Amino acid sequence: MNKSMIRYLLSKLLLLEAALMIVPLIVAALYREESAVFFSILATMGLLCLLGGLGVLIKPKNYHIYTKEALLIVALCWVLWSFFGALPFVFTGQIPNFIDAFFETSSGFTTTGATILADTAALSPALMFWRSFAHLIGGMGVLVFALAIMENSKNSHLEVMRAEVPGPVFGKMVSRLKDTAQILYFIYLAMFALFTLILWLAGLPFYDSLITAMGTAGTGGFAVYNDSIAHYNSSLITNLVSLGMLAFGVNFNLYYFLLLRKFKVFFKDEELHTYIKIVLVAAGLIALNVLGLYDNVRQGLEYVFFQVSATITTTGYGITDISGWPLFSQVILLLLMFVGGSAGSTAGGFKVMRSLILAKITKNQVMSTLYPNRMMSLHINHETIDKETQNGVLKYLALYVIFLLGLIFFLSLDNNNFMTVFSAAASCMNNIGPMLGTTDNFAIFNPLSKVLLSFAMIAGRLEIYPMLLFFIPKTWSKI
Amino acid sequence: MNKSMIRYLLSKLLLLEAALMIVPLIVAALYREESAVFFSILATMGLLCLLGGLGVLIKPKNYHIYTKEALLIVALCWVLWSFFGALPFVFTGQIPNFIDAFFETSSGFTTTGATILADTAALSPALMFWRSFAHLIGGMGVLVFALAIMENSKNSHLEVMRAEVPGPVFGKMVSRLKDTAQILYFIYLAMFALFTLILWLAGLPFYDSLITAMGTAGTGGFAVYNDSIAHYNSSLITNLVSLGMLAFGVNFNLYYFLLLRKFKVFFKDEELHTYIKIVLVAAGLIALNVLGLYDNVRQGLEYVFFQVSATITTTGYGITDISGWPLFSQVILLLLMFVGGSAGSTAGGFKVMRSLILAKITKNQVMSTLYPNRMMSLHINHETIDKETQNGVLKYLALYVIFLLGLIFFLSLDNNNFMTVFSAAASCMNNIGPMLGTTDNFAIFNPLSKVLLSFAMIAGRLEIYPMLLFFIPKTWSKI
Repeated sequence: MNKSMIRYLLSKLLLLEAALMIVPLIVAALYREESAVFFSILATMGLLCLLGGLGVLIKPKNYHIYTKEALLIVALCWVLWSFFGALPFVFTGQIPNFIDAFFETSSGFTTTGATILADTAALSPALMFWRSFAHLIGGMGVLVFALAIMENSKNSHLEVMRAEVPGPVFGKMVSRLKDTAQILYFIYLAMFALFTLILWLAGLPFYDSLITAMGTAGTGGFAVYNDSIAHYNSSLITNLVSLGMLAFGVNFNLYYFLLLRKFKVFFKDEELHTYIKIVLVAAGLIALNVLGLYDNVRQGLEYVFFQVSATITTTGYGITDISGWPLFSQVILLLLMFVGGSAGSTAGGFKVMRSLILAKITKNQVMSTLYPNRMMSLHINHETIDKETQNGVLKYLALYVIFLLGLIFFLSLDNNNFMTVFSAAASCMNNIGPMLGTTDNFAIFNPLSKVLLSFAMIAGRLEIYPMLLFFIPKTWSKI
Repeated sequence: MNKSMIRYLLSKLLLLEAALMIVPLIVAALYREESAVFFSILATMGLLCLLGGLGVLIKPKNYHIYTKEALLIVALCWVLWSFFGALPFVFTGQIPNFIDAFFETSSGFTTTGATILADTAALSPALMFWRSFAHLIGGMGVLVFALAIMENSKNSHLEVMRAEVPGPVFGKMVSRLKDTAQILYFIYLAMFALFTLILWLAGLPFYDSLITAMGTAGTGGFAVYNDSIAHYNSSLITNLVSLGMLAFGVNFNLYYFLLLRKFKVFFKDEELHTYIKIVLVAAGLIALNVLGLYDNVRQGLEYVFFQVSATITTTGYGITDISGWPLFSQVILLLLMFVGGSAGSTAGGFKVMRSLILAKITKNQVMSTLYPNRMMSLHINHETIDKETQNGVLKYLALYVIFLLGLIFFLSLDNNNFMTVFSAAASCMNNIGPMLGTTDNFAIFNPLSKVLLSFAMIAGRLEIYPMLLFFIPKTWSKI
């Protein structure tokens, strides 16, 4: 194992986090925050610079890394960024308990949006900004971001990017990987900026527009107020956020094709079609199920569309209390939680692409019992999905199920309500945020469970493998 | 499709069901039941003989069937046997509603043990016997039974047996398939007879011994009294039933090896080891979690062991109200529900063998991210499990998950409690019986849900594929 390369890259990434903290520092200055806030951010930056600076002093002799190292770097980076990102909250006392702050920051970077805060008013503008800024950074991937701006050091980046970008198939869009990362980040940030502008023009204060757009772009879910988007009590804002969330749940590669004016590729994409169909069918069924509850049909439809959009994209913004909805609607939302957004988007979950492949595999399997001698092939976008990719999806399902069951197993030691335990596990590993069927937040769990859930969020964001390796003794042994 | 062969075989099977009804008829005579009971059984037998007799009049020209026909025959046979088996309950008015009776009879044949009866006293001795007798017949497989006693008509039986015997790998133990079926049934019935005798010697009335042994042998769960095995209030009976259930959750092929004095094969079997380890670990964890609730430690341990055994073997007998246990213990039982018994046993669920293969696949998958160039092979009992079998297990998992989610989806239209809906679905598809976290029985569901759950029980017993084909239009189209 190339330990010095791991040390070197992680140190660089710590320096990068220090650099990113300049943004909340500026916010603190604009809002003339008290000196404790400045101190807390500056102290964290200092710590990051010290550790990162020491780590980059000695350059590694060998820059070459393998998949194993790449996965470890990704896992360690997410844990370290969450660890150091939590410090300003602790230093200011806005979240006095370190484990709570770590949970909140992991929730930020992984774009989960789960919170332990009873009241968001506990956060000052700069630190609330930092919490949501983590959504923006984490949405497209911490290391993809690093990749986009760092110099291209040999081969090391392909493996890193493969480990962090979600989805069953990974394709470079352009020949140079760094260019791919830059294009993805450019599209992402442009869409974020546009969405901020739209929200601002629609009447939100600029600060709220920024926070809401960061939560939407990263499909995270942290909002300015306790009652989330419902606070603005505006049809326009509700619908804009619904559409915004959906837009960020689409594979970003497709937007690149739009830029290239390859409209056909965009509009004929099978994952996109499936994604839209799922949204429409789910919204239709829920609407039939709950519209009787609302006097105002138009408002009811808005709520339904918003909740469907917030759930499938794993954003988790709230607009209405869905614990009053019939179980049928809640089950549909639960299914959407697991489906998740598109591969290559900022959304979490199992991903539409994988669900689509899984459905096709199962259909083939049933058909092959009918016609045992027929060769069954599997196509998506008129391209054959090879056996290896199919098996990869099936194996990911196995890992996913085992991981979910394991999480439920450990959480049940802490809480006696099955629905709470089940939805906390599902919510964290799919990076959604709120729990279903309860109005409690994650403060109800004990510190050990909070750490477990923080790691589950990171595992879910990184599609499990990197975090698993982290806990396997063999990873750390020499070969 | 060889329709005349399907018609011919199904007709024979209806005649066989008529013949089996002689047994409850004898019970009715012994208990001098009222004439309505005799009439109801005789009328059903008459109907079966009429339909079966007409169906076998014209022999098919071609005796050859393929997998597709075999799967259809299996699925149709289970549905028809449940359909006609339900009639005596309706004719006597002991279960006046046909759908309720169909649910109860499916639950019998599939060895689920789920009930819609608030009070088992509603059943007269002969019909209670018939209900439990269905466990005994269904335990080893309706068609395996047919196979054991019917003449060996060409190739048709291998496909049928493969379709009905649970587990990922199917092996003929001896060269002639009919002999295999006979050996399995001989072992099964001998163990059943022995267990009846043991219970009787332990002090149970003979009738109760029979009913309890049938529920145990089939890992079904129908008991004489509403409070199941707790009724006897006897440590001896409790422990005997615990051990009995465990014994019937073992692969019957292994008992054959015992008979052949191949003790090594028995004692070194990896599935058996895993099965025992799971039972011990689960019982140990639950004991640590609940023993504080019991004044009498020995009794507490008995209860824990009983519940673990009743759950993993998917029998579902009850000994104590587990809804008062902490969630941790209930979650362990929930996990056991899904693991289920051994392949080739009478137990339901995903099966220990599949779970073992799944665990090894996942381990290999994680290891192969660490060492991408290393070839990973998978061994059980020192034999390589080939890629095809591995993929079969993974695909079965996919189907299993999709089926479970679909079931939850439809049931949620009928009931507003997630735990009820979830555990009703899990309980029926894994052929367990009771629901978790509620003392309700299945009477709370509407007729449509009951039909759905009945089909789910049959689907679960037949490992889904045969029942799925049933609902696919293409199955019925000509090729």
